[in-house]
Amino acid sequence: MNIGIIGLGLIGGSLGLDLRSCGYRVLGVSRREQVCQIATARGVVDIASMDIAILAEAEVIFVCTPIAAILPTVQQLIPYLDPETVLTDVGSVKAAVVDEVAPLWANFVGGHPMAGTADSGIEAAQTELFVSKPYVLTPVETTPATATAKVEEIITNIQAKIYYCSPQDHDRAVSLISHLPVMVSGTLIATCNSDELEVVKLAQNLASSGFRDTSRVGGGNPELGMMMARYNREELLRSLHQYRQNIDKVINLIEQEDWNSLEQQLQSNHAARKQFVRE
Amino acid sequence: MNIGIIGLGLIGGSLGLDLRSCGYRVLGVSRREQVCQIATARGVVDIASMDIAILAEAEVIFVCTPIAAILPTVQQLIPYLDPETVLTDVGSVKAAVVDEVAPLWANFVGGHPMAGTADSGIEAAQTELFVSKPYVLTPVETTPATATAKVEEIITNIQAKIYYCSPQDHDRAVSLISHLPVMVSGTLIATCNSDELEVVKLAQNLASSGFRDTSRVGGGNPELGMMMARYNREELLRSLHQYRQNIDKVINLIEQEDWNSLEQQLQSNHAARKQFVRE
Repeated sequence: MNIGIIGLGLIGGSLGLDLRSCGYRVLGVSRREQVCQIATARGVVDIASMDIAILAEAEVIFVCTPIAAILPTVQQLIPYLDPETVLTDVGSVKAAVVDEVAPLWANFVGGHPMAGTADSGIEAAQTELFVSKPYVLTPVETTPATATAKVEEIITNIQAKIYYCSPQDHDRAVSLISHLPVMVSGTLIATCNSDELEVVKLAQNLASSGFRDTSRVGGGNPELGMMMARYNREELLRSLHQYRQNIDKVINLIEQEDWNSLEQQLQSNHAARKQFVRE
Repeated sequence: MNIGIIGLGLIGGSLGLDLRSCGYRVLGVSRREQVCQIATARGVVDIASMDIAILAEAEVIFVCTPIAAILPTVQQLIPYLDPETVLTDVGSVKAAVVDEVAPLWANFVGGHPMAGTADSGIEAAQTELFVSKPYVLTPVETTPATATAKVEEIITNIQAKIYYCSPQDHDRAVSLISHLPVMVSGTLIATCNSDELEVVKLAQNLASSGFRDTSRVGGGNPELGMMMARYNREELLRSLHQYRQNIDKVINLIEQEDWNSLEQQLQSNHAARKQFVRE
């Protein structure tokens, strides 16, 4: 089967490596000639081109561009596609993407592989990036079962763990476990950095592993963080408002010196975390 | 030189191991016979006893009990001490401890080694735990320079990085980089765990390294978290109020769809983190 990948960064490139290992023929498209050359040299794709027309041959196409480019990319692709061609994307928000793309292309299946590294770009592409990682698919009522089945088969072959849900439930869940942490963690940095100069300097010297871990995602790629908020605005706002209410509860318990209730809350957090994190 | 350690847990035990390596004679006291036996067997101390009276021989004594036990421990010790004996503690808050202990014992130097592991107890004691880690000393106006110099010499020998500041500045700095993260991180867990059941289950399945790191300290020891709040209440409340104001700013930027300012804030967080974390 010919599989197309448009956008040869970390995700697109890593998909290419694994799909070729599975025996698929991979056609890659990038806007940059240099990326096409690296992709070919690294064996990420069988053929790479800056010309989107080569994807006319593909049965399934993974759109691996940044979120903002998904819709224009699909619009650009459509003239070249056979009606049976299945499109899927890898964007980290789903409702905004599915609402725009599904009306344009019936055989579209929203997708989100929950895999990544601190690095990005074709150079960071690696084999087996998706093994045992969650891969969410968000088909909607109008999505043909055949299209979903085709994407599922491919993702099963790269050994990801598939979850199905609505685009809305996806966005709500990732607003909690992925986008909220960026804001919570970034705001911790902002707060530590805004005290009197002498205290900030001391804090910088004393910060250790607890601060390091809690601040990691908040110190990440600023553009990516902004895009999360932009494309998942409603769900992130909902999560942030809920979070602020919970911060108010903690402040209140400490102001009231209600140490039993505070310890109970911390106990409940301790227990709940085990359901989210398998260490 | 004879050095006393009272409280043979992770910190007290690790101090013992390193102090003996430096050639000091270490006298250890624990309330539990079993801990005394393990301490002797592991070479943490030269002599271990449940009887505080053995510390009469010590020139410098490290009080390594939990914060709540520091004052009663000092009161219990005083009858056995030569007036020249230097006391120091390892509590993670300083103003509350120094305010209580300094009036009782002139040769007291507040201390806080910023080293730890996820484990606790004598079994977790390890060599070189303090090497290159911050170790804060908080002498006050009434502290004799000779007492401070004696503690400094010992800490220099275990290769910790010494910082001097007032008890208040210490408490403010650790409220920011150590105690605030516990509340911020724990509240993230509480928020993710309080949505509709189906969304919570999906979130549990999708949570990955970002959530894992951001939630780590919030899922830690509940009693320790409560104690931080209890003994550093004022500074933690001050930090939490500032944090909530900053969360409100982020909410406001997202509500106003002011993506430029949000990206600038995230950029500023990204840059500021490098001053706190040396990776």
